[in-house]
Amino acid sequence: MAELQIDSILPDIEELIEHQQKGTLLNIMIDLHPADIEGILNRLKKEKRKYLFDLLPAELASEVLPELDSPVAEDVLEEAGDERLSSIIHEMDSDDAADIVAELPEDVQERVLDSLEDDVSDDVKELLVHDEDSAGGIMALEVLTMQETATIDETIEKIRELSDDIDHLYNVWVVDNKDNFVGSVSLKDLVLANGKAQLRSLMDSDVRTIHVRMDQEDVANFFKKYDLISAPVVDDQGKLVGRITIDDIVDVLEEEGSEDMARISGAPDEEIQEDSAFIISKARIPWLLVAFVGELIAAYILQQFNLEPSQQLIIAAFIPIVMAMGGASGQQASVTVVRGLAMGDIELHDTGTRLFKEFRVSLLNSTFFSILLFWIVYFWSGPLFAIILAGSMFIVINNATVLGALVPLFFKRLNIDPALAAAPLVSTSNDILGILIYLSITTFVLSVGL
Amino acid sequence: MAELQIDSILPDIEELIEHQQKGTLLNIMIDLHPADIEGILNRLKKEKRKYLFDLLPAELASEVLPELDSPVAEDVLEEAGDERLSSIIHEMDSDDAADIVAELPEDVQERVLDSLEDDVSDDVKELLVHDEDSAGGIMALEVLTMQETATIDETIEKIRELSDDIDHLYNVWVVDNKDNFVGSVSLKDLVLANGKAQLRSLMDSDVRTIHVRMDQEDVANFFKKYDLISAPVVDDQGKLVGRITIDDIVDVLEEEGSEDMARISGAPDEEIQEDSAFIISKARIPWLLVAFVGELIAAYILQQFNLEPSQQLIIAAFIPIVMAMGGASGQQASVTVVRGLAMGDIELHDTGTRLFKEFRVSLLNSTFFSILLFWIVYFWSGPLFAIILAGSMFIVINNATVLGALVPLFFKRLNIDPALAAAPLVSTSNDILGILIYLSITTFVLSVGL
Repeated sequence: MAELQIDSILPDIEELIEHQQKGTLLNIMIDLHPADIEGILNRLKKEKRKYLFDLLPAELASEVLPELDSPVAEDVLEEAGDERLSSIIHEMDSDDAADIVAELPEDVQERVLDSLEDDVSDDVKELLVHDEDSAGGIMALEVLTMQETATIDETIEKIRELSDDIDHLYNVWVVDNKDNFVGSVSLKDLVLANGKAQLRSLMDSDVRTIHVRMDQEDVANFFKKYDLISAPVVDDQGKLVGRITIDDIVDVLEEEGSEDMARISGAPDEEIQEDSAFIISKARIPWLLVAFVGELIAAYILQQFNLEPSQQLIIAAFIPIVMAMGGASGQQASVTVVRGLAMGDIELHDTGTRLFKEFRVSLLNSTFFSILLFWIVYFWSGPLFAIILAGSMFIVINNATVLGALVPLFFKRLNIDPALAAAPLVSTSNDILGILIYLSITTFVLSVGL
Repeated sequence: MAELQIDSILPDIEELIEHQQKGTLLNIMIDLHPADIEGILNRLKKEKRKYLFDLLPAELASEVLPELDSPVAEDVLEEAGDERLSSIIHEMDSDDAADIVAELPEDVQERVLDSLEDDVSDDVKELLVHDEDSAGGIMALEVLTMQETATIDETIEKIRELSDDIDHLYNVWVVDNKDNFVGSVSLKDLVLANGKAQLRSLMDSDVRTIHVRMDQEDVANFFKKYDLISAPVVDDQGKLVGRITIDDIVDVLEEEGSEDMARISGAPDEEIQEDSAFIISKARIPWLLVAFVGELIAAYILQQFNLEPSQQLIIAAFIPIVMAMGGASGQQASVTVVRGLAMGDIELHDTGTRLFKEFRVSLLNSTFFSILLFWIVYFWSGPLFAIILAGSMFIVINNATVLGALVPLFFKRLNIDPALAAAPLVSTSNDILGILIYLSITTFVLSVGL
């Protein structure tokens, strides 16, 4: 079965919605994978989105809803009755339910929690306590736990009972009589084992646990490092409180990667599906303001230098190249450091080594571009400006590269996301420093009258 | 069991290596997870790396080697004998083995393939045929397949036989008598089923297959979309040829995300662990050259405008802000489009909608910054330059934003990685266009003598 081509059925769906063919639409939806329904909802206009989503039975809606991006989810949930909301949330895994409830306005949140059955509402409330970017925020409470003295046959019986509630089952977690986590048994071992054997005889007690307050990015690196599919989450006392599975990690990786990619380039981590130009504009303006203020400072500095009028034009002509080369070199260094920190390839104790490496690289690059620029400017305008520009380029590239590597490491040490450092902070600082260095050298060389 | 703190044992390991305490080192290594051994190897100097890796028994070495980044892997494999290489590769899963063999120099590759047992060497050769960025390049051949007429008991017997060869087992793939893929049975269903039942009675035939030539980024999106843990890979005839598991996908996500993040910011996708400043410098220079040449063009353009000497300084002072604001706005638009394309949130048929949305955003942002700049320059230098700069800022931001969104979409249509468009191409073009727009407006306004 291949991937559904949404393009091919979208026009039909739209027509069916226009003609309010509820029965036919429902039959089509029931045959589709929730991810495909998500794809269709993404492509519909707001009113049609709501119409189609409202048709879905609660169970199907509960599988579609967690897949939706926030702007789309807001559309389909707008004006949804409390009863409808409760019945959808009731069908969800606890972690998805908590995510949805957390997004609701506070008054709706309370009403929905009140209308849920006690055990579901308790689970959701328990999860809402955790920071959404921590292990507690991404874990699910639906865990298959057994006492270490239970037999294989008892375990299989328990799986049969819970079969419908637990979607992704890879391991049985084993606890002692104080509910402390002691080990895990894989389904493969369960299949192969003798039915009368006790779990403790075949459990793997060498299993790594995740603390409930671990940051989600660290959890993801932990999963990658140890090639995990699922991992037990424990509290301060070592008591098993939940589990995280690889599908949560894939979401975290995408979220964090996309956030880093946006931040590193001076773009806000905006919702790509966001429709309102006002909201997007509001998110982007603060980043642009940093550059705006920085470059005003650059303009001010530029005006402070008393440049010989006959030489202003040639000096101005090379401002862009000095700025751009400093900016690009600094960006390369900071992006490399940010990537390395995000993937755990660079650690803080490497700071010295990393800076020294970046310095060696920038020595090579600055030498290359200084010599190149020297000869170009030599034939363009003569030896005086060739010397000024080669010297400026050399210092600006070295300065920008080292600064580009240093700032993210410094941010990391202060526990600020290093990706925030790369742009526009590093590039604006490098623009200001670049102009300062270039004009200082120019003034100096011209004044000593070389 | 918590994560190993490498810092705490690294000094001891280094001392043991210096004193050549092979026995003690081996005992420590055997107790560690391969990922922790990788962490230690990363932190050692080249000679110590080789010494420690050479100590590892072939089976442990086979688990550590696939985790290593290329520069480290090259270090530890340098001068490794063919026999040692063969015995390590023999212990690996076919996909990891093929990756390692592909990296070897050609003469070593041939000798190693010759020395492997026929079936292992055939597997590796089969996998080497596929493009390393395709489904075939990341799949493994170790698949548990059963005929649809087999019983549960027979299947469990088969699992018992193959238990050691297949690390990650989540599903049994079911084929018909022509080896065509017909469905899958999860381990959970296997645990719960009656031993005499036939697989076809409980298999899920609604399983999505992956074509062997599908691009790895598409495979990753496919896994994310359908929340898969493992998926069957089929050839043109629908014959089952391998399987891809979620741990391969996590690697792909990391690889592609990191590559995009580097490219989007005009940094090469360099190895973060690379030690040679020459190699890093060689990778970075081409990206810098694009900016270098572009800014030389900007310098040339600037010189072509015959600006009134008395006004050159004020004109030059605002070049950086015009360039930087155009550059940052263009970058924001292109990063958003590149992210959306990478995650499948933006598709090519959205081109019109996306450009219109970016245009609305840029109208808002350019209006905001034009008005702001107008008043600042008004008090700085008077109404003439206030009008020039507000007008330039307005056109430059709109132009840069639309160009920033357009170029990645255009690249995608040409099947070039859109991330390559974002920088330095978009930013350099925007610098040139920004200067051109700014100076044209300046010349025009000054010439009509406002």
